[in-house]
Amino acid sequence: MGHVREFQVYLTGEPVNHCVFAMSLDVDLETQPTPFIDRLDEEGADAIHEAAMYIIEEYGIQVNHEEGLEYFEEAGATIEEDNIVKADRSLIEDKVAEAPESFTLHARNPENNVEVGGSDTFRAPGYGAPNIRTFDEGRRNSTVEDYETFMKLAQMEGPINSTGYTAAEPNDVPQEVKHIEMVKRSLEFTDMPVMVSPYGQDRTDANLEMVGIALDDPDLSKTYAAGLINTVPPRTLDTRMTGGLVGLAKQGQAPVVSSFIQAGASGPGTMAGAVALANAENLMGITLTQLINPGNPVVYGIPSSNIDMRYGSLSIGSPESALFSNFAGTMGRYYGVPSRGGGALSDAKTVDYQAGFESMLVNLATAWSGVDFVLHAAGILESYSTMSPEKFVLDCETLRFIDRFQDGYEINEEMLALDLVGEIDPDDHFLGEAHTLKWAGEDFHIPELVDKRSHGDWKDDGEKTAFEMGHDRVQEQLDAYSKPALDEDIQADLDAYAEEKKSEILD
Amino acid sequence: MGHVREFQVYLTGEPVNHCVFAMSLDVDLETQPTPFIDRLDEEGADAIHEAAMYIIEEYGIQVNHEEGLEYFEEAGATIEEDNIVKADRSLIEDKVAEAPESFTLHARNPENNVEVGGSDTFRAPGYGAPNIRTFDEGRRNSTVEDYETFMKLAQMEGPINSTGYTAAEPNDVPQEVKHIEMVKRSLEFTDMPVMVSPYGQDRTDANLEMVGIALDDPDLSKTYAAGLINTVPPRTLDTRMTGGLVGLAKQGQAPVVSSFIQAGASGPGTMAGAVALANAENLMGITLTQLINPGNPVVYGIPSSNIDMRYGSLSIGSPESALFSNFAGTMGRYYGVPSRGGGALSDAKTVDYQAGFESMLVNLATAWSGVDFVLHAAGILESYSTMSPEKFVLDCETLRFIDRFQDGYEINEEMLALDLVGEIDPDDHFLGEAHTLKWAGEDFHIPELVDKRSHGDWKDDGEKTAFEMGHDRVQEQLDAYSKPALDEDIQADLDAYAEEKKSEILD
Repeated sequence: MGHVREFQVYLTGEPVNHCVFAMSLDVDLETQPTPFIDRLDEEGADAIHEAAMYIIEEYGIQVNHEEGLEYFEEAGATIEEDNIVKADRSLIEDKVAEAPESFTLHARNPENNVEVGGSDTFRAPGYGAPNIRTFDEGRRNSTVEDYETFMKLAQMEGPINSTGYTAAEPNDVPQEVKHIEMVKRSLEFTDMPVMVSPYGQDRTDANLEMVGIALDDPDLSKTYAAGLINTVPPRTLDTRMTGGLVGLAKQGQAPVVSSFIQAGASGPGTMAGAVALANAENLMGITLTQLINPGNPVVYGIPSSNIDMRYGSLSIGSPESALFSNFAGTMGRYYGVPSRGGGALSDAKTVDYQAGFESMLVNLATAWSGVDFVLHAAGILESYSTMSPEKFVLDCETLRFIDRFQDGYEINEEMLALDLVGEIDPDDHFLGEAHTLKWAGEDFHIPELVDKRSHGDWKDDGEKTAFEMGHDRVQEQLDAYSKPALDEDIQADLDAYAEEKKSEILD
Repeated sequence: MGHVREFQVYLTGEPVNHCVFAMSLDVDLETQPTPFIDRLDEEGADAIHEAAMYIIEEYGIQVNHEEGLEYFEEAGATIEEDNIVKADRSLIEDKVAEAPESFTLHARNPENNVEVGGSDTFRAPGYGAPNIRTFDEGRRNSTVEDYETFMKLAQMEGPINSTGYTAAEPNDVPQEVKHIEMVKRSLEFTDMPVMVSPYGQDRTDANLEMVGIALDDPDLSKTYAAGLINTVPPRTLDTRMTGGLVGLAKQGQAPVVSSFIQAGASGPGTMAGAVALANAENLMGITLTQLINPGNPVVYGIPSSNIDMRYGSLSIGSPESALFSNFAGTMGRYYGVPSRGGGALSDAKTVDYQAGFESMLVNLATAWSGVDFVLHAAGILESYSTMSPEKFVLDCETLRFIDRFQDGYEINEEMLALDLVGEIDPDDHFLGEAHTLKWAGEDFHIPELVDKRSHGDWKDDGEKTAFEMGHDRVQEQLDAYSKPALDEDIQADLDAYAEEKKSEILD
């Protein structure tokens, strides 16, 4: 007990009898914020930085985009055969240093602005799944109506503060205009910050025009939108994604540069090798954003996962996924750039125990790693292949649990309740006491969805699993949903733009 | 990027062409261990310590045990009406300081010894549930055969390293001899450290005699057994549990003193009030162990949870449970005593998403809080009321995921694989490379149970949920199980003792 120091307490009253005191412990504290988990110390982060510098300087990164190549060439990088760009470490380090530590993603409703890299955690729905699984229907291809469902749920569930993009792939819409249909609905069905198509500058620009219309700011004077710019490992920034990056950076919008390494397939079969290569790709992408627009918002993303070598399948609900997410948080802090990683990642095929524990593992590791920007924060299943509305609302419940843990608790006279402790005899209890009634419902989280009743009550209610309770919750949320107000003229302009653009593309 | 320091790298070779290098980054690192999460800083821990000192000095703790009272009286504490013991803070602080920071729990097989407070985490099955839920049968009262099942599973599943106690309540055995039947099976069906009945010195002593027989050390020259000594909040050490504590401490075995506060019912309806009261009760129990036997192994336990005020039900799979577990880790370090908290805690009624996410939340928070001694590490459901063999094996899978995360990864020349990164062209991949084949199966965790296959393979295999996969795993483990060898004479002695003792009790 060498830890116990002298500590000054002030007792304001005298004991009168064993039941009634007037005392106080003169403290007014909150528990500490959850410390960031850094699995790399500075030496470790330095080593990964050095490895990335070596990859960029000696091997180079392929940049399959004309304009992108020009930016690198103008900055003094060497362009070799096959669009291989080799850049001096000083160029990379200087440019990455210009990226801001934080930025605001502005929402149609300013109350929903998100400070990326600040006190907020950006959280968006699952991204890019072509299938949907529901309690009633099982698994099927998703539609534009499913996309609307997820926008409504995203708007209703507190822990989600962005639309994300492709919360459900609208398979019933022509490929060439999906980005129009989705972003239109993102803007109409929610009033949160949006994400736009990263798949070619033409699509990015069209989406950003829509954002300008909806936000009534055609010049995009603020950062309203983010776009997910996946690299194509190994060592490639591809044509369309780089186009998206260029489109975003030119208009001051936020690319989320994310090396999508599948360790053991598109990257080495080790954690260290995968993060070193991912780091190299990310730093090239971030450098490009700063060459285009110095100081442009950008996010450092590590969505990497490993391959399960038995099946050659991508394993996203894995301890390695949690380690990759941790790496994202650490390296974001190392470079002074907001980080992206993690989510409610699972390889479960349905909404079962596996879906619950894997999602909590990665989401909790993500929170405790200090990751700023979380795609797939809710709803994703089956190694990114399927979205489930029921899992979406259940994952939001887990995020509320995580946030309650993060809030910690207060230690002060009122909370310590030492007077009350003296008043309650050993064979008595605190139920029904005024202090209990006042505080227990406030200091203790009240779950909105999962079951906390007695076994008997649960049984009488039909022995519902969490999947079925999620089904009930989805219905309740959709019933309670109403569209956030949008100015009629703006709506008309948005409709007109979308119709015109679709015609132009499809004709 | 102010974080980037100079870092010396050694390149051992020269580039020959863009595909073949011989280089190394001269690093040989492991990632940092996961840092402990402390939500209380020293000021916060001091405040909770002061509050506990105030409770003990001013209100006192009821000790309903003659011999226990004598120890306190001899040490100078004041005994008031209703067995209320008021002790000076100096007595408490001095005695708690005498408790060891760590100790070894010795097993029948020395390879299974557990360093409590050292590098090991003690993990035992769920404890005390009167019901069992299986995939085939639903929920029913548990039997002694179920107890055997859990001993077999505990022996088979790596993450569990103790039998615990009452892994299933043997409802088909007379109450008075359950402790004989259970500990006999703990000793026969496993060769791990055991726990014994804490419910009265007579039962504790009988169990310890059995331990002495099985370990062939009748004088118990080492610490072989732990016992869970729950306080009875508010402010009581009850007759039978204190008897168990006395019995353990007199023979150098390890009491796990655990204030079983249900915050909002048996404790205040705030986190701060509940932990302050729990701390007071624990420190009294730990003091008593040291009065009986200075330097005796003891564990500081916080199994506290909150009441869900809507139903008056105990909520163990809650963010507050995770905070209580975190408090245990912090205060264990503060007092220099091993800590107990957490587990695979859930209020789910069946093995579903809720069971998965709640169990992972509390087990992960427990691991990252540096808790040393974990009861309920696997199998528990329904707010401690039910055990499930399927959840047991699934929880063990989550513990393997947690342990893999904790292991981190190595950063060295071999793992970084920079040569290989240079050899693989941008449009190529790492599948099938010798390095990948060598390392991916080693650096990436291979789950033993949950599904990592394609959707098609899962579908063809019958669309099993994790609950059903757990069912398969339970069968496999039980089929593969064989009893660890036990000397015939020892077995005969153990049988004879058990028969004699049961007759003595029941006649």
